[in-house]
Amino acid sequence: MGSDQTMTTAPHLVLSMDTGIDDALALAYLVAAGARIDGVSATYGNVLQQQAERNTRMLLDMLGRPDIPVAAGARHPSWAKYFVADAGCARFHGNDGLGDLQTAGAEGPAQSPAPATAPGCVEASTGSGIVELTAARIEALARQGHTVSVGGYPVGDPHCALPAMPGFFAHTGIAAPELPKHPDGDCPPVTEGARMIVDAAREYGHDLTIVATGPLTDVDTALRADPDAVSRARIVFMGGTLTQEGNCYDLVCETNVLQDPQAADRVLRAHADTTMVGLDVTHRCLFGDADVAQWTAAATAGSCRIASLLAGIAGFSIRANRESDPIFAAGMPLHDPLAAAVAIDPGLVSTLDLPMIVETRTGDGSGVRGRMIGNPRGVVDNAPPVHVALGVDGDGFVRRFTDTIRGFLASIG
Amino acid sequence: MGSDQTMTTAPHLVLSMDTGIDDALALAYLVAAGARIDGVSATYGNVLQQQAERNTRMLLDMLGRPDIPVAAGARHPSWAKYFVADAGCARFHGNDGLGDLQTAGAEGPAQSPAPATAPGCVEASTGSGIVELTAARIEALARQGHTVSVGGYPVGDPHCALPAMPGFFAHTGIAAPELPKHPDGDCPPVTEGARMIVDAAREYGHDLTIVATGPLTDVDTALRADPDAVSRARIVFMGGTLTQEGNCYDLVCETNVLQDPQAADRVLRAHADTTMVGLDVTHRCLFGDADVAQWTAAATAGSCRIASLLAGIAGFSIRANRESDPIFAAGMPLHDPLAAAVAIDPGLVSTLDLPMIVETRTGDGSGVRGRMIGNPRGVVDNAPPVHVALGVDGDGFVRRFTDTIRGFLASIG
Ligand SMILES: [Ca+2]
Ligand SMILES: [Ca+2]
Repeated sequence: MGSDQTMTTAPHLVLSMDTGIDDALALAYLVAAGARIDGVSATYGNVLQQQAERNTRMLLDMLGRPDIPVAAGARHPSWAKYFVADAGCARFHGNDGLGDLQTAGAEGPAQSPAPATAPGCVEASTGSGIVELTAARIEALARQGHTVSVGGYPVGDPHCALPAMPGFFAHTGIAAPELPKHPDGDCPPVTEGARMIVDAAREYGHDLTIVATGPLTDVDTALRADPDAVSRARIVFMGGTLTQEGNCYDLVCETNVLQDPQAADRVLRAHADTTMVGLDVTHRCLFGDADVAQWTAAATAGSCRIASLLAGIAGFSIRANRESDPIFAAGMPLHDPLAAAVAIDPGLVSTLDLPMIVETRTGDGSGVRGRMIGNPRGVVDNAPPVHVALGVDGDGFVRRFTDTIRGFLASIG
Repeated sequence: MGSDQTMTTAPHLVLSMDTGIDDALALAYLVAAGARIDGVSATYGNVLQQQAERNTRMLLDMLGRPDIPVAAGARHPSWAKYFVADAGCARFHGNDGLGDLQTAGAEGPAQSPAPATAPGCVEASTGSGIVELTAARIEALARQGHTVSVGGYPVGDPHCALPAMPGFFAHTGIAAPELPKHPDGDCPPVTEGARMIVDAAREYGHDLTIVATGPLTDVDTALRADPDAVSRARIVFMGGTLTQEGNCYDLVCETNVLQDPQAADRVLRAHADTTMVGLDVTHRCLFGDADVAQWTAAATAGSCRIASLLAGIAGFSIRANRESDPIFAAGMPLHDPLAAAVAIDPGLVSTLDLPMIVETRTGDGSGVRGRMIGNPRGVVDNAPPVHVALGVDGDGFVRRFTDTIRGFLASIG
C-alpha cells in the first residue's frame, strides 16, 4: 500500500458531476467543509446533462453558494452521439436525479412539471440539446453509423433495455451553447465544462484537484485539449472497482466507467496524479436512516429547506439501495461523498499503487468492456501508477460526513 | 496491506500438484531449498491425474527424493465426472505436461510412447481411470446428466473447444485405487491425495502448510472430510487473480480456479489461514533464457540429467509464453514456484487481507464463472480474510529461485 501525501494548503477544486443524489450529497459535504470550489461542470450520467446542470445550480443556491459557476459539460460519451439515461438511473436517483421529491408530494424544491414525452419515445441529449428518439429514429441513426448510449450500453447490446425505459424528467429546448474561444486561442473547441477544467489547470497547476463523480468524458476532453496543463492537476474520481464486484454488466463494471470506458482509459493512462475511489471503498461507507435523522434534528429555520432536501434524497437512495441488495441493508453507499472527501483529505483512504487500464471491448482476449483492471504491460514497463483506494475506515467516514453536514445545517441562522 | 507472519520453524508441507512444467520447477525449488516435504498429491489439471502422478514420481526420483510419497489425487473436478485436458494445457506444458522433450528428440527422461488414441476420440479421466470419449459418447453422457470438463469448461460452453483437441499422452488402464479406510474410521471416502492432506493435518495441525499449485479439488475434499483438522493448517495456493487480467475466459479468470470454481470458493470460505498467490504477483516474476543458462553451466556429471530436464522444460515454457503474449518477452512467469516459495517464506510477498469468493455462474447478477473477487457480504460482515499477495520483488525472487536450484545442481557429485 502506498501512503497518501498530506496537503499543505487547501487545493482549488473543480468538480465534474452528473448531479444525482450522491453527487448532491458530495457537493453539500464540500460546501459544509468549507472547501475551495472554483466551479462545477455538469455532465450527462445519472440524468441528461441539462438536468444535471439544473440540479447543480439549484443545490448551490440552496447551499448558499450561488457564486460558484456551473458550466455545461458533456452531453454524451466520447463513443456515442446520443445519450439516454437508463432505468437503473431512475431507480437509484429518481427521474429528475434528485429522488422525484416533488412528484412524490414530499417537501422539496420547486420544479417545473415534467415535459410530456410522446408514447414510445425516449429523450436523448446530443451535443446540441435534447431530442426525442423513437425506435424508428434509432434504427435510422444506426443505419447512418451513429451510436446511441443507453446508460452506457450501446443500443444493440443485450444489456441495453431501451423499450423498458420510463419517461424521464428533463427540460427540452436548451440551445447548443456557443463554445467560447480560449483567450490564448490555443484550445480546441470543447464543452464549457471541459474548458472550465482546462482554465483552472492553467491557472492553478499542481494546486488544482479535479473531482469527478460522473463519467470521465469531460476530464478526458480537458486532458486532450491541454495535456501539459491538465496532467499537472491532481485527479480524484469516483468510479470503477478492482477488488469488489461491479454494479452492472455481470458484476464486472462500475457505472461511471461503463458510461465512457474509452475516456476513462485515456484518463488512467494520462500520467497525472490520479486517485481512484471505487466500490472497493465506497461499499464500506453505508449511510443510514439514523444518520439522516441527525440532519433533520439539527435543521434551523434558515436551513430547513436544504435540510429537508438532503434528508429526502438520502432517504430515497437508502430505500432504493436496501431494496436492491442485502449488502446495503445498513444504508446507501457514500460513493461520491467519499471521493469528494478524499480530494480535500487524501489520508481518508489507503491506496495500492498500480498502473491501471479500462477494457473497452468484450470477448476472449479483449476482456470485458468497462472493466477497470491492472495494466498488464504496465507491470513489466513500470508505467506510472494510479492510486487505487482499497482501505477506508467506513464507520469513521460516515460519522465525519454526517457530523460535517449536521454542523453546517445547525450553523445557518 | 497486512504483513505476513514469519515462521519460527520450517513447516511440514503437503503439496497438491497437477504436475506440469511450473509445478515441476516448484518441486525442484522446494527440494533444492531443503523444505520438509511430507508428500505430494497428484491431481488432474495441466494433464490427466495419471500423468501428473507419473511426472511427479519421475521428478522426485531424478531429484534424489524417491522417499517422498506420491498419492493419487482427484481425477476430475467436483462439478464434472469426466476431465479432458485442453489444448491450452498442451500448448504451455506439452502433451505429457513436461514439454514433450522425448517427442522433440531433446535429451530428457525415458518415457514410454504415447498410446494411440483413435481418430475422433479424446481421452478423459474419471474416478475409476481413463476412458476414451467420442462425440457420440459425450452426447450420451450429457443426455444422462453427466458433465464433462474440458480444461475447466463444461462441454457446451462456447469456450470449450473439444473438436480441436490434440491427442495427449497418458497411460491407460490404471485401475481405481481402493480407498483406504482411515484408522479412526471417521473419514469419508475420499481420494488418496485428499486423504494424505487430512492425515497430515491431523498429525501436524498448525505446523502443516498445504501447497496447492493445481485445481483446489483435493484441498476442498480434505476440508470437507475433516473441517476441524484441515482448517488448522495453513494453505498457500497458486491461483486466481484480483488486480490483473486473467489467462482464460475473457481475461477474467485464472486457469487453476476455472478448473473447479466451486471447490475454490469453498476453500476460500473455509476459515483457514489461506494465502492466494495469483497472477497479481506471478506475472512479475519472469524467468528467462539467461537464467536457464546458469543451471546448465552449473550441472555436474551427477546432476546432468535433472539439469537437462529442468532446463528443457523451462525452455519449452519460456518459448510458449513468449509466443503467447508480449508481456512475457522476458520469460515465463514463475506461477507455481512463487507459491511454493511463499509456503516456506511468507515474507516474499506483501498481502492485502480481504474476504474472497469465487463466482460459480455467469450472467447478470451472477458475475463470471471462475472469477475470484472480494466477498461483498464479507465486507459488511467482517468475514475472515484471505491473504491476497499483491506485492513482490519479482527480480529478487527470480534471482533467488535461479540461485537455489543452481546451487543444488552444483552440489550433486
Ligand atoms: Ca455521480
Ligand atoms: Ca500447476
